[in-house]
This record gives sequence, structure tokens and C-alpha cells, in this order.
Amino acid sequence: MNPIPSNYADLLERPLFGHLGTVKPDGTPQVTPIWFQYDGELLYFTTATNRAKYTFMRANPNVALSVNDPEQPYRYIEVRGVVESLDPDEGGAQFDALAARYGLPLRASQLDDLPQRVRVVVRPVHCTFQG
Amino acid sequence: MNPIPSNYADLLERPLFGHLGTVKPDGTPQVTPIWFQYDGELLYFTTATNRAKYTFMRANPNVALSVNDPEQPYRYIEVRGVVESLDPDEGGAQFDALAARYGLPLRASQLDDLPQRVRVVVRPVHCTFQG
Repeated sequence: MNPIPSNYADLLERPLFGHLGTVKPDGTPQVTPIWFQYDGELLYFTTATNRAKYTFMRANPNVALSVNDPEQPYRYIEVRGVVESLDPDEGGAQFDALAARYGLPLRASQLDDLPQRVRVVVRPVHCTFQG
Repeated sequence: MNPIPSNYADLLERPLFGHLGTVKPDGTPQVTPIWFQYDGELLYFTTATNRAKYTFMRANPNVALSVNDPEQPYRYIEVRGVVESLDPDEGGAQFDALAARYGLPLRASQLDDLPQRVRVVVRPVHCTFQG
């Protein structure tokens, strides 16, 4: 069952930055801003195999994404979920979809790290929200 | 030694929202938006003893704060740190300082949970940044 309340789904549908939390093998947290997209069921984003976040998610697939509303900053959703796949972003399709969504005039084909890029798929399991 | 680079300190000095990551006792992350302030050495924010975040920080004092620049969203700082104290926010002084910083016309004396409110002090130990 999808835990995301319909009246907060706009925070995942609009091209807002999310702040993704992962847990390092030593049990301490990492949080960094990310691009993401949501298809009504799963969350998708991109990273690369040479990034710390990738290593952390391989070891511990539990993540949390926090998104607040720039127009009403006390309104937010936190989505906790589990990484379902961390596969190569073949041809950079996931990167290109996100670049288009966020209006960045950059193509995966221009990336130095294209061969290392991965598509991350997260299944939401729990949400918190406010505002 | 303070790990925060001077050319990113503005992200901690401006009244921006931070996204604070904590780790639950089961090893999964929690991330939610917070108010905070920075005095050039330590980070300060507020929570309450009946909040999940308080319980998580009591059990595991490692936290990470992610802040991006609304005017240049690819510019961000992530501060990893350790909770140094989780003491009662006597009289709501920390809450009032943050409400003033963020322009919210609300006083601690109006809060139902004032007796439960705590001031959280975090010592930065490591940073990542970009942009």
C-alpha cells in the first residue's frame, strides 16, 4: 500500500529538491540534496558508483527523503523507504529525465561519469508530514 | 578545529531551513526540516522530549544537516556533527531566538509543549559541499 497521502503528493510531483538521508556503515547519517521523480508508486533518482551515497545504500538500503514547500516552508513530507534497485543508468536515460524535469540544460552524454551512473529506485514504506 | 569552510558559512548564517538526519535505533534514517542557528562554532536547534527525533538523538548522537541555497540550489553544505547537549530549553529562550531569526510571530510562552522543549547543541565534525 502506498503510504503517501494524496494531499502531500504535490511535494513529490513538483520539481523540488529533496534531502536524502542514508546511513553509513559506522551508523552515522549522511544527508545531501538530490533531484528525484515520483511516478505515483516509486521514487527515482540518480547517483554514481564512485559516490559515498552509493556505497552507503549498497550496505544499508534504508533511506529517508525530506521535501519542504518553498512557498509554505513549514509544510513538508518525509518519505522513508527502501532501495529496490541500484542498476546502471543505461545511456543516462534517468539522468536525462531528471535534468529535463529540473530544467538543467545538461545531457547525460556530456557527463564524465556516465559509465558509473546508476538509477536508484526507492519504494516508500512510511511517511511523516506536517503543515 | 571548525570544519566549516568560510565560503559556505553563509548557508548556516542565513535563516534557511536545514534538513536534519538522525538514525533510528533500528539503523534506518530519519530526515526532517528544521530551524537552526550557528554561532561560528556550534549549531543550535530545538525539539521536544515527546518527538521521535529526540529519542533517536538520545540513543545515537550523530546527526547530519543539509542546507541548500534557494538562489543557487546546486550549492549546498552538509554538516555532520555530534550532539553535545540535549538540555531543557528553559523558558523557551532557544525557541524564541529561532522564531525571531525565521520571522515567525510565535513565542515559546504560547507553546503547549514548552515544558518538554529542549535545546539541542551540535558540534560540527565534518562537512561536504558543492557548487
